[in-house]
Amino acid sequence: MAATRDKSAGRRRRRTRGQSRVAATPRLPYIKRNIATYDILSEEGLCLIEENADRILRDIGMEFHNDPEILGYFREAGADVDADRQRVRFEPGMCRRVIQASAPRQYTQQARNPDNNVEIGGDNTVLSPVYGPPFVHDIDQGRRYATLDDFIKLNKIHQMIPHLHHCGGIVCEPVDLPVNKRHLDMMLAHITYGDRALFGALIGSERAEDSVAMVRILFGDEFVDRNTVLYGVSNTNAPLVMDDAMSGSLKVYARNNQAVACTPWMITGAMSPCTEAGTLAQLLAEALATCTLTQLIRPGTPCLMGSFATAMSMQSGAPTFGMPEAAKTVLAAGQLARRLGVPFHTVGSLTSSKVPDSQAQQEGTMSLIMAVLAGANFINHATGWLEGGLCTGFEKTIIDADLCGKLIEFCKGVDLSDNAQAMEAIAEVGPGSHFLASTHTLNNFETAYYRSSCGDANSFEQWQSEGSQQTAQRANKIWKQLLADYQQPALDPAKLEALQDYVERRKAEMPDRNY
Amino acid sequence: MAATRDKSAGRRRRRTRGQSRVAATPRLPYIKRNIATYDILSEEGLCLIEENADRILRDIGMEFHNDPEILGYFREAGADVDADRQRVRFEPGMCRRVIQASAPRQYTQQARNPDNNVEIGGDNTVLSPVYGPPFVHDIDQGRRYATLDDFIKLNKIHQMIPHLHHCGGIVCEPVDLPVNKRHLDMMLAHITYGDRALFGALIGSERAEDSVAMVRILFGDEFVDRNTVLYGVSNTNAPLVMDDAMSGSLKVYARNNQAVACTPWMITGAMSPCTEAGTLAQLLAEALATCTLTQLIRPGTPCLMGSFATAMSMQSGAPTFGMPEAAKTVLAAGQLARRLGVPFHTVGSLTSSKVPDSQAQQEGTMSLIMAVLAGANFINHATGWLEGGLCTGFEKTIIDADLCGKLIEFCKGVDLSDNAQAMEAIAEVGPGSHFLASTHTLNNFETAYYRSSCGDANSFEQWQSEGSQQTAQRANKIWKQLLADYQQPALDPAKLEALQDYVERRKAEMPDRNY
Repeated sequence: MAATRDKSAGRRRRRTRGQSRVAATPRLPYIKRNIATYDILSEEGLCLIEENADRILRDIGMEFHNDPEILGYFREAGADVDADRQRVRFEPGMCRRVIQASAPRQYTQQARNPDNNVEIGGDNTVLSPVYGPPFVHDIDQGRRYATLDDFIKLNKIHQMIPHLHHCGGIVCEPVDLPVNKRHLDMMLAHITYGDRALFGALIGSERAEDSVAMVRILFGDEFVDRNTVLYGVSNTNAPLVMDDAMSGSLKVYARNNQAVACTPWMITGAMSPCTEAGTLAQLLAEALATCTLTQLIRPGTPCLMGSFATAMSMQSGAPTFGMPEAAKTVLAAGQLARRLGVPFHTVGSLTSSKVPDSQAQQEGTMSLIMAVLAGANFINHATGWLEGGLCTGFEKTIIDADLCGKLIEFCKGVDLSDNAQAMEAIAEVGPGSHFLASTHTLNNFETAYYRSSCGDANSFEQWQSEGSQQTAQRANKIWKQLLADYQQPALDPAKLEALQDYVERRKAEMPDRNY
Repeated sequence: MAATRDKSAGRRRRRTRGQSRVAATPRLPYIKRNIATYDILSEEGLCLIEENADRILRDIGMEFHNDPEILGYFREAGADVDADRQRVRFEPGMCRRVIQASAPRQYTQQARNPDNNVEIGGDNTVLSPVYGPPFVHDIDQGRRYATLDDFIKLNKIHQMIPHLHHCGGIVCEPVDLPVNKRHLDMMLAHITYGDRALFGALIGSERAEDSVAMVRILFGDEFVDRNTVLYGVSNTNAPLVMDDAMSGSLKVYARNNQAVACTPWMITGAMSPCTEAGTLAQLLAEALATCTLTQLIRPGTPCLMGSFATAMSMQSGAPTFGMPEAAKTVLAAGQLARRLGVPFHTVGSLTSSKVPDSQAQQEGTMSLIMAVLAGANFINHATGWLEGGLCTGFEKTIIDADLCGKLIEFCKGVDLSDNAQAMEAIAEVGPGSHFLASTHTLNNFETAYYRSSCGDANSFEQWQSEGSQQTAQRANKIWKQLLADYQQPALDPAKLEALQDYVERRKAEMPDRNY
């Protein structure tokens, strides 16, 4: 154990050196918010949305498609189940009661490096990279289909970014691998190249079982039985449906005491009403029904209320991101989750821009700030998202990580210590002088102020003499440097071999499929 | 009067057509916030900062340089004045008492088109364009010294942007004109090309007198005596100094019942301590002393508490913008202003980027969002700022205006009407269907959702077929279209002639000076 600690400290030191290009502040494993959440709804508004959600669950209900086992869970718990229509209705208050009876308000997700364990819930926020894009983009090669090589590169870059707290999952879709097997390669790559907390595969019980089997090899059966080591997301098919691909993985994770973020996924105006209040009631109804399911399967298993609601353009039908309606919705959803008493999951630096340009940062910055102010406990897609989630940007990852760093600093709140009050400094300097050489400044300059990684604050002339670079060009250099500086975290060779064996065996058991 | 109204309505209609490219939502003359402010400091923290500010004013005091008349005002009010050192000290609570006895919590600034009158204070927010840059930038010609032609173009563009509420002042410095006369041309251009509320010249009593003389011609003496028609900013020379250039204009505006935003200007770490708590105490002390001065000169004249605090890079000494420390400071300063009971003035989309790129929007978006959440009543530099305030960007103006539009929508809060609750829609659509053709969507689609002016939400293929444009390229087309669509608001020819005469006469009275 002592040896493990020493090794881990050595890794920390090495990483800190490599990461000094990204930020001067020491890395913390997750954000401990020292600031208030931003409440956009009044008590009256919250009660109204909650009543409307209860009415939806009572009068309309939610459908669970192609999964009769789930209907059984609900029937046994006293819900009104119409098996023919696969429809489940709930008396007002039932879901809330079930959830509040057993779901933890906060839990720890263990990482293979215990220094990277994350605390999910309460005043804590975990930032995780983009999830799901089939394309990647960098300014050298433009946009192209993603491969396993891109996936590994992104894993290494993420591992080197101090402002991310989680491995993430499908940081890009390695489309050079068969659809039915790539989850195995992805999990193996995450475990091999990173040492932070892990995502489990989302779609279908079989892939979820593989995720659980692999973490059992990594952590040991007993450890996994007692601890949460995987993070899963179960999306609804809004409005008011969950299909067996999602309920399948939900069941596997819940049975194994692994976390599930029950996340209604809504392009509002298409999958929910085109108004925030309507969307919120439907969102809460779907989250209540699906969180309830996790607790019926295994009382006490960690579940999160998730929110992913973004507006459809009424002109083109395209989804939009970083818009004011999405901002209002996520803030209100955070309030609803806190009242429910489970951790809150949402999404980060979203944009429909195809490139890491002004639009990408205007939309992404608004989106990520609102997620933080909403008191999100887990922010998926905190970095790298482009093109409505179809593309992971290498430069976008670096630029977003800079914003993550700023928000980590913001979340510390205002220091009110004697040193921060600086009353002696103000007296020492007096009117008309400056603080540059004051004792206070000399004592504090090393830690004062967040240091931007890819912003350029130099004079125009200096900037011009360095090639008049746009942000993306500076970010391009940074991700290449992070890759060059990357050092693979140590992993017990016997475990790695066992994991590789598992992946090979599982692949051999199935023919390749691309659907 | 009826005729005036009709003309004004006609202008509104025309403007609405021209502005439809920028946003679908109808223009309102200012933001009426229907959302809470974001409070980053606790009651305890606020009391601590207030006590520290009082201690600074008692123990150190503030200096007013080269303006003995001001020392007289303070002496007469009972402050402790050291005339040799030009230093004024205040007993704890004195400034607050003076301000609260007479300064209005809210006031109206009249515009020459009464439809554009702005309400300053309370839950209202006014967005004003960039102030002061000697350079302009567009992607066609790059960065260059600004001219009167640029100034007029920017005025026309601002007038066409529905999300701006104020003419602004030095939207760029026309450096082709003599330094001591350009304020006359700028005021004339503002009055000629726009019909929103006006800024007065900031530096020196003589220029301020010219501003007042010109609005007296425009509005009439009696109207100006009874109403506020100018907005002035008086910056301190932090730490704890105000010089006669600023106190000179402050006196002119206060005597004429015109508004002054008393705004400590701080590159923190150089002009204030490198910590937020220290900066806030000094900022509040400077704002208290200078707001007090306005009320001693003319009790009841409108004054605002201003805040412009941004961190100096401890590595390069360059000012930085949009950083987390500035965000925390502006939020706390807004709380302090509300407790003082005067409107709050601050700054908007700041960045040190030289071009309208990712950095510009990441920094500017964070900065403007925080100003809005701080409950700012007047946001200077809401659009166009580049390069630490040295440059006004034409594309940056358009991109920032898009963010302004988003925040205007955000400030409406969550609509909780029956229509917005959409309970019938959710029942009508039911599980597994979609809302695209629902009655509710058909009834609401025209007003649902903010419509971004320069964001592109189309598919990659569509975007590619349209030339793979970055945001700045789309913004370039928009500002050119706004210029093409611009229509000059009507102005009484006799007034215009009188204003032109005044400007010519004043210019003839002075030799050109370039300092």
